[in-house]
Formats: sequence, C-alpha cells, structure tokens
Amino acid sequence: MQVMENLVRTTVGMSTNIVWHECSIGKLERQNLLMQKGCVIWITGFSGSGKSTLASMLNRQLHCRGHVSYVLDGDNLRHGLNKDLSFKAEDRAENICRVVAKLFADAGVICTASLISPYRRDRDACRALVPDSMFIEVFMDVPLKVCEERDPKGLYKLARAGKIKGFTGIDDPYEPPMDCEIVIQLKDGKYQTPKAMAEQVVTYLEENGYLKA
Amino acid sequence: MQVMENLVRTTVGMSTNIVWHECSIGKLERQNLLMQKGCVIWITGFSGSGKSTLASMLNRQLHCRGHVSYVLDGDNLRHGLNKDLSFKAEDRAENICRVVAKLFADAGVICTASLISPYRRDRDACRALVPDSMFIEVFMDVPLKVCEERDPKGLYKLARAGKIKGFTGIDDPYEPPMDCEIVIQLKDGKYQTPKAMAEQVVTYLEENGYLKA
Repeated sequence: MQVMENLVRTTVGMSTNIVWHECSIGKLERQNLLMQKGCVIWITGFSGSGKSTLASMLNRQLHCRGHVSYVLDGDNLRHGLNKDLSFKAEDRAENICRVVAKLFADAGVICTASLISPYRRDRDACRALVPDSMFIEVFMDVPLKVCEERDPKGLYKLARAGKIKGFTGIDDPYEPPMDCEIVIQLKDGKYQTPKAMAEQVVTYLEENGYLKA
Repeated sequence: MQVMENLVRTTVGMSTNIVWHECSIGKLERQNLLMQKGCVIWITGFSGSGKSTLASMLNRQLHCRGHVSYVLDGDNLRHGLNKDLSFKAEDRAENICRVVAKLFADAGVICTASLISPYRRDRDACRALVPDSMFIEVFMDVPLKVCEERDPKGLYKLARAGKIKGFTGIDDPYEPPMDCEIVIQLKDGKYQTPKAMAEQVVTYLEENGYLKA
C-alpha cells in the first residue's frame, strides 16, 4: 500500500515510538483555502473583566467578515471532559485549552481562548507551544475593584465568604502580562463597548496580516 | 456593559457554577459560512490497518474539494499534551481526542480522528458526546494477521517480544463495531488503494448531506 504521509520520527520524553504525522495537506494549504492565518488569541484577565464578552463579539465580527473562528473557554472546555472537575480545576482546563487552541490554529482557524490564566509561566508555556507569531495575548486591564463590583456570576461574593478557595484576586495572585500584543483598557473608568473592544483586536489582526492568506 | 451572550446555567457534577456560553454565532451560522456540516469521522481498527493512511487521503480529497477538514490522531494529540505519556497511554489520548473532535465538529470542521480505540464502550461514549448524526464511525476491517505482517512501525514485533505490554490484538482485546456507518474492507485479500478507501467515505458524506450547508 502506498503510504501517503511522511513520518518524521521524533523522541518525546520516554516514548520513542511516537511519530508526528505530517499530513499531505499542510498549514499553508489550509491558509490558502481559508484566506486567513490560523492563530491563538489568548484573552487573560480577572473574572468579570469582560473576557467572554470580548471573545463572543470578536467571534461575531470575524464571522461577519467571512472568517472561520471559534471560541474556547474554561466553561465549554470542561463540558464533556470530566464531569467531576470543580471550579478550582480552571488550571486543568487551561492545560487542555493550550493543546486544543494549538490544534485549531494549526487547522487554520482563528481560535479565541478566554480564561483567567493568572500565571505568567503558564501563558508563556502556551506561547511556546505554537509557532512564532501565531500567539496573540490580550490583557483585559480592568482593576480588581471594578470586576468585583460587577461580579456577573456572583463568584467574588462566594470567594469573599470563603465558599470558593483559591479564587484569583481574592486569595490567589494574578500576574499581569509584561509585554503582550494587545491591552484592552477602561475608558474614563468605564468598560468600553464590546464592539469597540472587538474592533481593537480585529484592527490588530488586519494590520498584522492574519486576515489574508 | 451589554452582555452579548446567553448564559445557560447547568449543573455539571459537583459544580453548579459552570455555565455553557452559547456564543452569538452558532453552529448553523458556521455551517452556512463553510458550506458543510461539521462532524467527527472516527476511524477505528488495529495498528497497521491503514487508519492514518485513510485519514490523510480523506483529508486531501476533502481539501481539494474546498472543504475544511482536519486530522487528529493519537500521535499529534500527544505532542504538547504531556511529554511523559507512554505509548500505553493511547487511552488517555483517546479521552482527549473525544473532546477535541467534538469541539472541531461544533466549529464546523470535518474532523477525522484516527485511533485504535479498541473498546466499544469508549467509542459509544464519544458518539454520545456529539449531537445525533455528527458521529460517523469507520471500521478498518483488516484481520490482525494482515496488520501484523505489514507492521509498519515494528510495534507487533516489539509486542510479541513482550517489550510493549497491553498491545491491542496481542495481549489486549479489540472489540469490532456492531453497527457502524462505514466498513472498509480488503479487496481480494489485499488493501484497497488510499484513494479508493477515501472515496468510499467521501461518497458517504456526499449522500448524507455533510458536504453542503
């Protein structure tokens, strides 16, 4: 039987029999088909900082322009993964999310991941996983005080009451990015509209060549 | 701030604060954009039965017709996931693969998963995870003897020598599907060409409406 794929033998940890299948259709060919460059848009920030709202609006704006995009977040990732995962297991969702986002970007999709992802080393690990310039970090630069006032899911209240342990900003640290691609800020102390936030990201994508083959 | 998404509160195991984000762009809208129906094509069979070869050729044929498709297999899934995973951890890759394939199909992509996946209950669990008719099980109906003669990665030899434990077909069972969508068989005792096998799947997709919006 004619074997259509090139097998590139690699050594991964203890396993030497794992091979990476270089499929006959590659990233560039998918890029040309979709007329866009697959990438990971990683939105980080406190709970309540507007990550999901931005992700959702960005997805809509990209779709309306004919681009193939998809949103991953801690919530839809946990569905089906492991029904016993507690909210504390956000870090496990983040771990899976990295791999999934990488695969989506490789498939040519503009993949938006929206997770608190409080630790710099974890975000950097994700950046290291995808090829250069396929990782776009977006920081929701909203002060904790503002997020806590909003508290859309009532989680800060639970965390303050000690009913959720290890909650970012309350009894667990958040490390803001030092040098990320995009910073979303408040305007006159207030949240920008979802449309304005999404446009800031779309403009970045456009100016950096992601929205063409 | 205007919240653009509908939050559907669900109870998942012990966690009641997990919400499923119903993004404003839904599956149907993605289907219309891509002019295809996202689905999971799950190829199961012995090591050496031609799963990866079929997946690769199928991917090429779909791409050439302008369809957005992607191949997941035990090998590329393990890359980046956990460098210490041994070959025995095929089942863990399978576990992750289910969730990833479901997300890809939801994103509108025709996602081909190629894994040995020897247990019926695990394949059924995957089928249960995606909505009706989005799961297409393909059985590589190749006798063990033929696969072992081919032994493209030299794994049967290692398993026979006791150097790999729990190897499907040697010291671990394979449960063939009872009622799957597609069966790929030998022709006159020989492997079909990759082209012929892929065409059988493409014909199924076409006849069942997956290749249009």
